[in-house]
Amino acid sequence: MEEADVLIRDCTILTMDNKQHIIEKGFLAIKNKQIMAVGRSTKASSLIKAKETVNAAGKVAMPGLINCHTHAAMTLFRGAAEDKPLDTWLRKTIWPLEAKLKPMNVYDGALLACLEMIKSGTTCFSDMYFHEDMVAKAVEKVGLRAVLAEGIIEAGDSARGEKMLKDGVSNAKRFNGYADGRVSVRLGPHALYSCSPNLLGRVREAALRLKVGVHMHLAESLDMTESLKSKYGLSEAELLDKIGFLNDLDVLAAHCIYLSDDEMRILARHNVKVAYNPVANMKLGMDAAKINHLLKLGIAVGLGTDGPASNNSLDMFETMKVAALFQKSSYHDPTILPTETILRMVTIDGARTLGLEKQIGSLKVGKRADIILLDFEKPHLTPRHNLYANIVYSARGSDVDTVIVDGNIIMEKQKVRTIKEKEVIEKAQRTASNLVAHA
Amino acid sequence: MEEADVLIRDCTILTMDNKQHIIEKGFLAIKNKQIMAVGRSTKASSLIKAKETVNAAGKVAMPGLINCHTHAAMTLFRGAAEDKPLDTWLRKTIWPLEAKLKPMNVYDGALLACLEMIKSGTTCFSDMYFHEDMVAKAVEKVGLRAVLAEGIIEAGDSARGEKMLKDGVSNAKRFNGYADGRVSVRLGPHALYSCSPNLLGRVREAALRLKVGVHMHLAESLDMTESLKSKYGLSEAELLDKIGFLNDLDVLAAHCIYLSDDEMRILARHNVKVAYNPVANMKLGMDAAKINHLLKLGIAVGLGTDGPASNNSLDMFETMKVAALFQKSSYHDPTILPTETILRMVTIDGARTLGLEKQIGSLKVGKRADIILLDFEKPHLTPRHNLYANIVYSARGSDVDTVIVDGNIIMEKQKVRTIKEKEVIEKAQRTASNLVAHA
Repeated sequence: MEEADVLIRDCTILTMDNKQHIIEKGFLAIKNKQIMAVGRSTKASSLIKAKETVNAAGKVAMPGLINCHTHAAMTLFRGAAEDKPLDTWLRKTIWPLEAKLKPMNVYDGALLACLEMIKSGTTCFSDMYFHEDMVAKAVEKVGLRAVLAEGIIEAGDSARGEKMLKDGVSNAKRFNGYADGRVSVRLGPHALYSCSPNLLGRVREAALRLKVGVHMHLAESLDMTESLKSKYGLSEAELLDKIGFLNDLDVLAAHCIYLSDDEMRILARHNVKVAYNPVANMKLGMDAAKINHLLKLGIAVGLGTDGPASNNSLDMFETMKVAALFQKSSYHDPTILPTETILRMVTIDGARTLGLEKQIGSLKVGKRADIILLDFEKPHLTPRHNLYANIVYSARGSDVDTVIVDGNIIMEKQKVRTIKEKEVIEKAQRTASNLVAHA
Repeated sequence: MEEADVLIRDCTILTMDNKQHIIEKGFLAIKNKQIMAVGRSTKASSLIKAKETVNAAGKVAMPGLINCHTHAAMTLFRGAAEDKPLDTWLRKTIWPLEAKLKPMNVYDGALLACLEMIKSGTTCFSDMYFHEDMVAKAVEKVGLRAVLAEGIIEAGDSARGEKMLKDGVSNAKRFNGYADGRVSVRLGPHALYSCSPNLLGRVREAALRLKVGVHMHLAESLDMTESLKSKYGLSEAELLDKIGFLNDLDVLAAHCIYLSDDEMRILARHNVKVAYNPVANMKLGMDAAKINHLLKLGIAVGLGTDGPASNNSLDMFETMKVAALFQKSSYHDPTILPTETILRMVTIDGARTLGLEKQIGSLKVGKRADIILLDFEKPHLTPRHNLYANIVYSARGSDVDTVIVDGNIIMEKQKVRTIKEKEVIEKAQRTASNLVAHA
């Protein structure tokens, strides 16, 4: 048998494959960044030679978590303005702070976010922000996987919109396939309230030319949705449909709260993917998106944290639980979005949402080896009547022991190998303090 | 200066006193179970002699968290039935399992719950269950503080109701002031759908005679509230008012979701205290209680996890965040229940809810020394723009480093001193597996 790069043995494996197989006392072998073998530990598997062996007895292996919507570098502004309405929060605090952001600041904030994500088991994130070149460099450094979209905000200034589109296209060309293929790209038209239909048309053309998708906000706020309706006479998804934006375009839409049934059908018809962000939605006083409706229409839904300044955490375990809770309460139905569905949203369905389902999202031979190990020898993870429930309702990011991305062990026994944690934290603290002090 | 038992120094102190003072670089001295001194670290404080000194640089000290409503031993059933309606969950799974529960099983489950609570920073919990004598023994063993109420369920069988009341009274007499005063007691009439008005009247008399309060469920489920209304012609709080149950009685009511404005005024008039359990409420598909209305009426509101089989966690940091999120979403107002209010609910207002505000809930000289230290040198707790927001929105139970109850250090550097963690976990796993296997 050929030699593996990494062998993980004697753990419970949550494959998240089509049949949602769970393997007790299983092993995973990794070679050339891919999963080379997965199965029950047997005499044969115990003979596999590997450069590095991880004894994972008492642990649970599962696909690395996928965060479908965030603004990573906004860690810098976590706590800078709390308990405010969205509009006030943006105009009074966030946009003035962002106006002062330098590329190196984005690097510092993104590195802090990456550290937080690794420590809580996220192996792939879908980002929209400014200076995504710096985010790409942070991702390369720490060893994560990411889909990066340079934000494009016109805000009534068409020259600004054109400039940002140009930057977005330039970054997309530069960083598609970056970091050994772990980075892919999208264009990031911010939202319908910040980009005109004309600019959106130009973004669409550029995305089709580049053969990349777009990542945008949609129907996040009732106020903004209503103000757009009075301006255009159409709801958000209707407007996108009417201007032809959705035709042939791979669209990842974050939020999707304030949509009519007709609009949901528009999204389904155009194969739009949805990133659902329950924590940030609730914190801003918004309603629950109708996720069960979207799922019934066959729409791919992944989960996201949204930016760490509006959540204020990047822990996807928390987001899993809150997503289930908010949906059950909103539909007045405890049976909807059961644990299996929630787990799919952060693994294989998250991958579908980002168009990466062939590469990641489940533990199958041939897929990229993005794997996390959870330490289950904890009081809150006892007893083990139901493994899925243990993970969705009881586990926390701090239960993640080991993180593997693209076959590389980037965290082991809660210690990150690729960066110096203390330095990253201290640098981000200084950068954040300086930005806020001079606001 | 007299010698302290414990000296904690060089930490940030969140006092939760009337003025919500935050002391940077502060110290706390503990003597005879009480807080002897609290203030800024100075030359004088550095000269205090202590039997044990905790160097807490980089840490945040705050009052131990108070969980106002749980059924601790139900850790055994965590995950035994998931994503079910309340009625099905109770009748098909929980009640049949509980029928087989032996006192020692309750001890095993309660000990696991205590371990989980210590590790996530809860120092006092308010419990309602069967065999509370065993819970009292677990509490004594681990060193926590608790308010224990023996559950009383009549369920149409008045002899059963009488028997349970008798047991409740007997346990109340035996365990009030137990474990060096850390245990106090209540009577636990389960709910209006499980106890008749006649039995409730007898519970009230017994409680007044014993000079203890009661702990009950109120208006948790719309179905049950409506079924009671069709039976009695009155809503739940109206019925309690009409039968005189609330007169002169110290009532802790868990949930309080389905109440009219009139009923909320009834609760306020009788000084009823409320334990709010957002996670369990949402998981069962319920609505949000109108907490902002209750607070405006001057009602004391604390937070609870509810039982670990319906949450499925005892982490009060999670409960803090979900409480804020659910209320903001439900009221469509991101400004309500700001971080200060949420923090009061798990500290000083939690103490008020249990009638313990003179003993615990804030870090003031003369109060019992129930203190936790949070390790803040973590990526998700960076930067520190807003300490309250860091704790409510970003911290997790796993950030708790040290736990002190009644002046005793029961956990240091995440290691519990009073029990062997591994043994507690393994015993509870065996007990839980046996119970479910023979269901």
